[in-house]
Amino acid sequence: MDYPKKVKIREVCTRDGFQMEREFIDTDKKIEIIDLLSECGFADIQYTAFVHPRAVPNLKDAEVVSQRIKRVPGVTYSALVANEKGFERAVAAGVKTVEFVLSATDSHNINNVNATTKESLQRVEECLKKDSDCLIMPGAAVAFGCPFEGVVPFERVKWIFQHYVDWGLTEVSIADTTGMANPIQVYDTIARLLDLFPDLELALHVHNTRGMALANIFAGIQAGAKVIDSAAGGLGGCPYAPGATGNIATEDVIHMLDLMGVETGVNLDKVITAANKVREVVGHSDSYILKAGKAFDLVKEKPKKQT
Amino acid sequence: MDYPKKVKIREVCTRDGFQMEREFIDTDKKIEIIDLLSECGFADIQYTAFVHPRAVPNLKDAEVVSQRIKRVPGVTYSALVANEKGFERAVAAGVKTVEFVLSATDSHNINNVNATTKESLQRVEECLKKDSDCLIMPGAAVAFGCPFEGVVPFERVKWIFQHYVDWGLTEVSIADTTGMANPIQVYDTIARLLDLFPDLELALHVHNTRGMALANIFAGIQAGAKVIDSAAGGLGGCPYAPGATGNIATEDVIHMLDLMGVETGVNLDKVITAANKVREVVGHSDSYILKAGKAFDLVKEKPKKQT
Repeated sequence: MDYPKKVKIREVCTRDGFQMEREFIDTDKKIEIIDLLSECGFADIQYTAFVHPRAVPNLKDAEVVSQRIKRVPGVTYSALVANEKGFERAVAAGVKTVEFVLSATDSHNINNVNATTKESLQRVEECLKKDSDCLIMPGAAVAFGCPFEGVVPFERVKWIFQHYVDWGLTEVSIADTTGMANPIQVYDTIARLLDLFPDLELALHVHNTRGMALANIFAGIQAGAKVIDSAAGGLGGCPYAPGATGNIATEDVIHMLDLMGVETGVNLDKVITAANKVREVVGHSDSYILKAGKAFDLVKEKPKKQT
Repeated sequence: MDYPKKVKIREVCTRDGFQMEREFIDTDKKIEIIDLLSECGFADIQYTAFVHPRAVPNLKDAEVVSQRIKRVPGVTYSALVANEKGFERAVAAGVKTVEFVLSATDSHNINNVNATTKESLQRVEECLKKDSDCLIMPGAAVAFGCPFEGVVPFERVKWIFQHYVDWGLTEVSIADTTGMANPIQVYDTIARLLDLFPDLELALHVHNTRGMALANIFAGIQAGAKVIDSAAGGLGGCPYAPGATGNIATEDVIHMLDLMGVETGVNLDKVITAANKVREVVGHSDSYILKAGKAFDLVKEKPKKQT
């Protein structure tokens, strides 16, 4: 069985998790949580989004948060944008890496950012032309299944990534935004993409809506995904499955990868501390490790290697 | 990627799930649920246990249940036993297949059935010598991790299965009883066992205590596991992690395997009906599909094949 000895983790709790929270989360609390996350060893913390405050009221303080968080050297502090306006705000706020959100299907993209996929690709291209030192990491949301259109044909996903490759971009992401992907599909899709575009550093973003997130991550890293997205406390969700689980919890991902011997650079106990803080602030969480504890918590002699 | 086109499912809700329920479940309700499960297409329904009623009060009606359930041709109706007394009760009740429970570690086995692993192996051997037409399927519980002893060395697991092979048994099971296994460990352990004992038809029993159950199943079938245990409604649990998730929900397993194109013979919609009945009867469940619905429920055009 082929799997990597090392993957990067991108923490998205305060962006993808907080954007779904109905009650406004106090800016100081956000900063406190991001600062806790900064101590964990993540490669990347996607800490906010520069989007319209009417669309995502909870992230209307993106500028203030950007100013006040402590930045730990070696950590990328990225933000999400959906159009040129957001990109300009992010650049003005000093953001050096943005994820540009774009859905694989027109239906979802129109619903999400009021543009067709092609129009969003043009938005990315316009931003790439701007004179900035900000890295643009675009991706493909609902790349495995769309709540409106169903299964997304591989050719559609390929068409999107072909644009990124043509523009010289290598750091890109692929998302199972609504938790519809299965491990074989994740494996096949990523393997085929990397076969076509071997230079891509592909980030895999999975939701645990139907319990398959860790299986999909396991399949994804077998196929060559290099970055895994997750959210401390398992926050987030999907408007199409109210009450369902959202992002896979970072502590559940790190717990599994630690046991598997896959290096992430992330300290699980520090993530658990941050996730507990997240739960305290928002009043809920969806995390196996917060509920059950780590596998070997009860055992005196901790495992070094499993097999 | 190697994975089978077909696996068998053993449904264990009314045994492994119900044994953990504090309130006695009415015998008629048990029978109603087992009869619903009989319509789903399972290879095997482990419907009860013949164990001491003080140890597992909820299954004290094993004999009555055995008499009154409807038996669908082609379905194996198995029961769990822990010693010769239980085996004799099962045989007297007409059971034709028993799982003989036995833990990989002495600590867990003493705690569970008041015997060392070696003593339990002797119990199995005694039962095999009896003149009965009942198939004995033994296994190894806590084979990946033990809440008392930690990681279980592969040599210990091999030593147990060597006994089964020496006795000519091929249908055996391996269990992550307390949800401590990770996918690489599951893959390696099963691959090594099947390398040593290629004739085994290995059933994999996983709990979702730390969210890894579907990943472990995905790893297990890649390594050659032929049978998957699961419990409708995700019932069950573990005394060492109170409040944590127990058995992986059958509907979550079938949903994933259906999407992956792995044939089980099980009808997902009928399982969902049975799981809803389970939830109605016991008042709770732990199931992604009952919460979120199937991946393509919202989509008009259902997928035939994902990729």
